[in-house]
Amino acid sequence: MEFSSKLLENAVYEMSQLPGVGKRTALRLVLHLLKQPASQTGRLTHALNTLREEIKFCRNCHNISDLSLCEICSNPKRDNGLICVVEDIRDVMAIENTSQYNGLYHVLGGKISPMEGIGPQDLTIRSLVEKVKSGEVRELIFAMSSTMEGDTTNFYIYRQIQDEGVKTSTIARGIAVGDELEYADEITLGRSILHRIPFETSLKAD
Amino acid sequence: MEFSSKLLENAVYEMSQLPGVGKRTALRLVLHLLKQPASQTGRLTHALNTLREEIKFCRNCHNISDLSLCEICSNPKRDNGLICVVEDIRDVMAIENTSQYNGLYHVLGGKISPMEGIGPQDLTIRSLVEKVKSGEVRELIFAMSSTMEGDTTNFYIYRQIQDEGVKTSTIARGIAVGDELEYADEITLGRSILHRIPFETSLKAD
Repeated sequence: MEFSSKLLENAVYEMSQLPGVGKRTALRLVLHLLKQPASQTGRLTHALNTLREEIKFCRNCHNISDLSLCEICSNPKRDNGLICVVEDIRDVMAIENTSQYNGLYHVLGGKISPMEGIGPQDLTIRSLVEKVKSGEVRELIFAMSSTMEGDTTNFYIYRQIQDEGVKTSTIARGIAVGDELEYADEITLGRSILHRIPFETSLKAD
Repeated sequence: MEFSSKLLENAVYEMSQLPGVGKRTALRLVLHLLKQPASQTGRLTHALNTLREEIKFCRNCHNISDLSLCEICSNPKRDNGLICVVEDIRDVMAIENTSQYNGLYHVLGGKISPMEGIGPQDLTIRSLVEKVKSGEVRELIFAMSSTMEGDTTNFYIYRQIQDEGVKTSTIARGIAVGDELEYADEITLGRSILHRIPFETSLKAD
């Protein structure tokens, strides 16, 4: 792409560094900002800068939070013996949305991925292990995505806490509610049969 | 979406004001920036702010330019009697990429669209008409997208300059090179027959 302006070229380049944003999309977004009042660009850049500079993570669960202890961790009504291990804040938001979970979270900040150069020391695994060893935890629920990286991360954590006498579980894998069986992949369908649940139990859901 | 942080919520909101960026995408982009070094966010916001504050438009063709007269308009080798009327800078870039055009451009900055509240006074039509009336222009090529808004804009300009003795043309509409006839829409195919060109002429292209 040949630009008639270095300023424009630079803005498009920086915008295209965002994931999933190609040069064309970046140009469209930047031209949109140019058509809007300057205040919109001001608000966007101010919001991003403020977030990046003042970002805080909950000292207990490592979730993004404006307070040093997040609202979930500081809620006395939540069960602090139950900890759900997730990858990032989006998983916390998704599980909170279900209104089915009353425990706390532990946000790892990613998963072990040698391909992307992410090792255990880049995640908040040590603080999770310490939490378990302190004896406060009754059960750990692994809720990582079921990929090789997710399984590796689960297993890495499991090995470090297996002798602590803490119950461990993973979220159920199965056919999504409303999905047709014939379109399900074999592994998921296989697991859903292997880990079938009593019919009476299924009636009590929701 | 329930956010655990007002700072995060605000950044996601501002990001989602960009066209084609929903709340989920905005969250993904913002979380990506949080995982990268703070310098990346700094470069992005600096580039956007600098562009928005220091943006200049060529005084002749109204294209985005760092100089008061853009490189195309100030190039003595270009034919300044030939003016291609386009909607925005992306069209200039697309036509420049073909290396088939040696005239100048006139960037309108949009097209007349009552639906979006864009009238002739919001575009650079007056300066185009003045340019034509000054007698410098030999031919005007309309290269707007062939939508109702594009046609309206072309016609609005045409009516104001039709008595000035300037040649006017529009870019050819037809079947794209490499496209199958059977998949072409009827209007395009119809126009490509109506405005057919001598076979000898077609041989000389490229």
